[in-house]
Amino acid sequence: MESLTLLASSRSAGKTITWEDKTWTVELACPEAFDDLDIAIFSAGGSTSQELCPEAAKRNCVAIDNSSAFRMDPAVPLVVPEINAAAIRHHQGIIANPNCSTAVALMGLYPLHELFGLKRFFAATYQAVSGSGAAAMEELKGQVKSWVNGQPLEVKEYPHQIAFNVLPHVDVFYDDGYTKEEHKMLNESRKILGHESLRASTTCVRVPVLRAHSIAINAEFEQPVDVAKAREAITTFSGAELCDEPSKNAYPMPLDFSGKEKCGVGRLRVDSAFDNGLALWVVGDQLWKGAALNAVQIAEALHAQTASV
Amino acid sequence: MESLTLLASSRSAGKTITWEDKTWTVELACPEAFDDLDIAIFSAGGSTSQELCPEAAKRNCVAIDNSSAFRMDPAVPLVVPEINAAAIRHHQGIIANPNCSTAVALMGLYPLHELFGLKRFFAATYQAVSGSGAAAMEELKGQVKSWVNGQPLEVKEYPHQIAFNVLPHVDVFYDDGYTKEEHKMLNESRKILGHESLRASTTCVRVPVLRAHSIAINAEFEQPVDVAKAREAITTFSGAELCDEPSKNAYPMPLDFSGKEKCGVGRLRVDSAFDNGLALWVVGDQLWKGAALNAVQIAEALHAQTASV
Repeated sequence: MESLTLLASSRSAGKTITWEDKTWTVELACPEAFDDLDIAIFSAGGSTSQELCPEAAKRNCVAIDNSSAFRMDPAVPLVVPEINAAAIRHHQGIIANPNCSTAVALMGLYPLHELFGLKRFFAATYQAVSGSGAAAMEELKGQVKSWVNGQPLEVKEYPHQIAFNVLPHVDVFYDDGYTKEEHKMLNESRKILGHESLRASTTCVRVPVLRAHSIAINAEFEQPVDVAKAREAITTFSGAELCDEPSKNAYPMPLDFSGKEKCGVGRLRVDSAFDNGLALWVVGDQLWKGAALNAVQIAEALHAQTASV
Repeated sequence: MESLTLLASSRSAGKTITWEDKTWTVELACPEAFDDLDIAIFSAGGSTSQELCPEAAKRNCVAIDNSSAFRMDPAVPLVVPEINAAAIRHHQGIIANPNCSTAVALMGLYPLHELFGLKRFFAATYQAVSGSGAAAMEELKGQVKSWVNGQPLEVKEYPHQIAFNVLPHVDVFYDDGYTKEEHKMLNESRKILGHESLRASTTCVRVPVLRAHSIAINAEFEQPVDVAKAREAITTFSGAELCDEPSKNAYPMPLDFSGKEKCGVGRLRVDSAFDNGLALWVVGDQLWKGAALNAVQIAEALHAQTASV
C-alpha cells in the first residue's frame, strides 16, 4: 500500500489518529475525497454507503462496502475471498462485504459444501454484543458492573437487559416472523456460494458475550458424508481451524476466538436427523472475519487481480 | 397432603428446615425410611436413586425420580403430566421425571405435534448455569464479580470460564460426537411422546444466564402447518404461554421466565427450510418445569389417579 487516507463525517474530520509511528489527519468524506484513491473501505452504515459508494465508483475508486446496502444488488459482487474471490473480477466499482454471521457460518459450511454438496442448513446463533457496536459492548459491561454493585441496570442499546439474558432478536423483524439478520444468512449464503436452490432456516440470538459469534449448525448434503473427510477439509481450508477434541474438552469458544483471524470449527458429527447430514459448531471473531479482516482480504485480492492483469 | 418427611444423606440428617410456620427435622434416607410413605420425590443424583428408589418401591412408596437413572428403563414411565399422565398408571413403583431441556422443548413441541404430527426436529439450547446446581450459579456470579473488580476468575465447575463465554458442552461426550444431554433430548422425547420413529439432532450449549433454559427449534411435521392454528394450540395448552409479538419486541427470555411455572413460546413462524415446518423459541425455568414442578405434578396426577380408583 502506498498511502492511506482516513475519511469520516464532519463530526470526526480534522481529528488526528496515531498508529505506531505515524499520524494521520482525518479528512471529510465528500464525493471529491475519492478522486485520487484506488480502493476505499466503507464502514459507516447503510445510508452513508448508499450516498458515497457510487461517488467513489464514479471516480475509479473501488468501494468495498461493509454495510448491507449493496449486498443483494445483482451488479455488486458479495465476496468472501476464500470462497468466491473470482467474483471480484465482475465488479462495477462496488464490492460488498457479507453479514458477520453469514461469513462465520460459511467458514464451516463451505469446505463441507465443496466435498458433499450443501442442500440445506439449520442454524442458531450466539452473537456477541460487539456486533451491535462499541456502545453495546459498554452496555453489557455497564450492566454487569451495576449488577455487581447492586445498582439499577441501564437498558438502552437493546430493547431488554442483555446481562444474564439472551435475546432471540438481531436486527428488525419481517412479516414472515424471521428477522432481517436471519434473512441475510439465507440470501447472502446463496449469493456467495452461487447456490440459488440452497435452503436455510436460522434463529439469530444475542448473548452476553463481548466478542466473537458462535453458531450451531445442522447441514444436509447431496452426497453421503464422512466425518474423517470433513475434518480434513476443515483442516486444509485457509479460513478455518479445526478445534475438535471433545475428550479433552476442546471445542471453539468465543473467548478463545476473539481476535483470531481464522474461525474455529468443532463438535463435528454425523447428524442424527438427516440421512446425509453433519452437525457442527463454528465460532469466529465477527469484527475480523465477519467485517474488517474480510474487507482487507477483498482489497488484497482486488489488488492482486489488478496487478496480474 | 397429610404429612411431609424430609430425607437426606447422613451429612444433612438431623438438620432442621423451617418454611412458613412449620419446622421439619431432616431424617436419614435409609431403606426403612420409606416404610410409612406413599410417595417419595428423589432429587439426589443417579447413584442414590439407583440404590434407594427400588427400596422405596419395595415398601409401596412410589418413587418419583428426578435423576436420569431410570428414565429409559422400559418398566419405568417417563412422564410430563400435560403430555402422558396416562403412563403413570403403568408404574411399578418408580416414575421418572425427564431431563430439563427435553421437558422445556416439549412444552413447545407437544401442542404442535398434536396438530400436525411431529416428524423430526433440530434444536440448539441456551442453558442456564442453574442446570448444573447451586455451585455453578455461584461460579458465574463469582466470575462476574472478579471480572468487575479486576481479579483473576476462578474456574472450577465447568472446564472453561462461563462468564462472557458460551460452552457447547452439557454433560459428557459420547463416541458419536453428541453429548449425553443431546442424546437425552432425542431418546426422552421419543419415550414421552410414545413416538419411536421421531428423529432429532440437538446441540446443547451452556450460556452465562443464571436461570431458565432457552431453545431454538426447527420442527418438521407430517401435515401442512398453519401458524394461526399453531398459536391457538400453544395458547390453549396448559404447559405453555404464547409470548409472540415481535413488533412489540415481545418474545420469551430467560429473565422473564425465571420462576414461572409455564414455559414461554415465541418466534413462531413457517420454517423456510422445511416443506411442512415451523420454527419456534421456547424458554422455561428448568428448576420448575424441567425438574421440581414436573415432579410435583406427577405426584398430584398419581394421587388423583389413586384417589379415583
